[in-house]
This record gives sequence, structure tokens and C-alpha cells, in this order.
Amino acid sequence: MDLTSLIKAKIRDIPDFPKSGILFKDITPLLQDREAFRRVIDCLAERYRPEKIDDIVAIESRGFIFGSALAYKLGAAFVPVRKKGKLPHQTVDASYELEYGTAEIEIHTDGVKKGNRVVVIDDLLATGGTAEATCALVEKVGGKVVECAFVVELAFLKGRDKLKNREIFSLVQY
Amino acid sequence: MDLTSLIKAKIRDIPDFPKSGILFKDITPLLQDREAFRRVIDCLAERYRPEKIDDIVAIESRGFIFGSALAYKLGAAFVPVRKKGKLPHQTVDASYELEYGTAEIEIHTDGVKKGNRVVVIDDLLATGGTAEATCALVEKVGGKVVECAFVVELAFLKGRDKLKNREIFSLVQY
Repeated sequence: MDLTSLIKAKIRDIPDFPKSGILFKDITPLLQDREAFRRVIDCLAERYRPEKIDDIVAIESRGFIFGSALAYKLGAAFVPVRKKGKLPHQTVDASYELEYGTAEIEIHTDGVKKGNRVVVIDDLLATGGTAEATCALVEKVGGKVVECAFVVELAFLKGRDKLKNREIFSLVQY
Repeated sequence: MDLTSLIKAKIRDIPDFPKSGILFKDITPLLQDREAFRRVIDCLAERYRPEKIDDIVAIESRGFIFGSALAYKLGAAFVPVRKKGKLPHQTVDASYELEYGTAEIEIHTDGVKKGNRVVVIDDLLATGGTAEATCALVEKVGGKVVECAFVVELAFLKGRDKLKNREIFSLVQY
């Protein structure tokens, strides 16, 4: 089976999660399928190997799952971006809009060295707010965002518009 | 450098985090050192390869970082255990004691198949409450916990007492 079909077969739709009217894309069946999980990581690693990536910057917490295995496979460093207050050392933060109000995320000031080549990764691209804030954080600490990578893209939410000056890669689109 | 010394050299002490009187062990420098991170995963993979592990059950969210790369390397499935309300499908839950009150964690009911051989992983063993609750969840859904693995063990908090009927492995101890 081609990888796109395999991923789509392993994503489970959950109606009304986390709240009424949302059709949630559950990636846990994909993670439980060792063949599918392996192929996702291998595909991403193949894409980024020629790019000489220094750091995989992953967004809490489902982004950690893909980011860590990818960093391991590439021999890159793993750098977490977390919700405000979770990282213990000196941080810089960025805020982004939610449906109601704003949220804040942080990166360690020494998380990415100046000039390092970075891939930002999360499981899913929705409106793009978190990803754009993460790219801003990487740049604040001196890194260069080579690309933003997602396993799933909800194209109808137009996250690419929010990330319009970024390179974007997603494995499957809805 | 031997792996124990390397890991200890890459763990940063943060006084008074997350609150006064706690000396927090920050693993992010370890994750940023590609050689150290690779060797941690390779060491765990070598330990568990002969055990024919089906599932790596990882505890949110720092456990995801080690669990995902280990699952990838072993060719095992990755199964997340999360704080209550975060997993979208049918779950079973378990509670454990905090200093004040209790916390609840969940696993998907179909996360681990009956009879599957499981390694439970987290970054750090402290009092053992979360790890013991996670083992209970794995058994509730029919899995067999082969061992609990940690990168760091705070031995003075006596987590092994709480996990007294479990196999436990940690890479470094304080």
C-alpha cells in the first residue's frame, strides 16, 4: 500500500472531540501499527537527510512522538517547544490566537544554536497558529527554519495561509 | 566516556523548579546532544531487543520523547498514556496520589492487545506513582509489563518501593 493510503487507513475519525462539532483525527492507530509508524519516520528522514538538519524542534506533546524518532533517525538534536511554564531553564515565549483568547508557548533560549538548521514538526497542521509561533521562537533564538513538517494537514483550515512565508510539508491532506 | 557519565554530564540541575525546594533534573541538554541521545536509545534498544517487546507504553509528555525513538528503533508499537481527557477514544483510567490530592491518567482501551509484551517508559522515576498507575492501566487492558524503564532515577524518593513487584531499569541514579 502506498504511504498516503496506509496513513489514512490508520487515522481514526472521532466525532465531537474535544468538543461538539469537531471531527478529531486520532493518530494513535497509526502509532500502534509498527509498519506504518516506521514508514512515516523513514519518509521524513529521507526528505530531510540531504538538508543537513541540526535540530528537530517538536511541539508538545504529539509532535514529540514524531519529532523524537525523526531526530534519532537523522542523528539530529531534539528540542521541545512546550506550553508556558513547563520548561525549567531560561526561555523565550510567543503567543498565538485561539478561538477564544490566546495561548503561550516557550523554547529554551539555548535550545537552538545560532545558525542551526531546523525542521519544526507537529502531528497535525490545523489553523497554523502554533506552528507559526514555533517558527518565530526558533528565529528569536537564532535558528533557521528549513521547513515545517506535519503528518496530517487539514487543508480546509488554511494553515498554509498563516504560514505563508514558510516551506511546508505534510504526508496526508484532508 | 561511559554512558552513565555522559548522561550525568548532560543533565542540568535547576533549583526551585517547579517550586521552591525542588532540585529539578533537566534532560533537555541530553536531548540536544545528538551523540548522548543516540546512545541512550541504543542502550535501551539493546536491552529490550531479546525480549520481543510488542508495545512501548510512554507517559506524557517527556516519556514520549524516549518512548517514540525506542519504539522506532525496536520496531515496536508506540502507545501513549496521557492525563485524563486528552485521549479521544474509549479509555480506562487510573488515579495516583500527588503531594496534595490525586491525578488521573488514561490509556486507550484498544491501546495494547491482550497478551502483548510491554515496556513502560518515562524520563524519570521519582516516587513511582505515575509509573505504577501506568502499569495498572497496561494490565487492565490485558498487556504484560516486562519492565519499567527510566533514564533518571531519584533513588532517594524510593520509587522502587512503590513499584516493588515490577522489574525496573534506570540508566543513571541520584
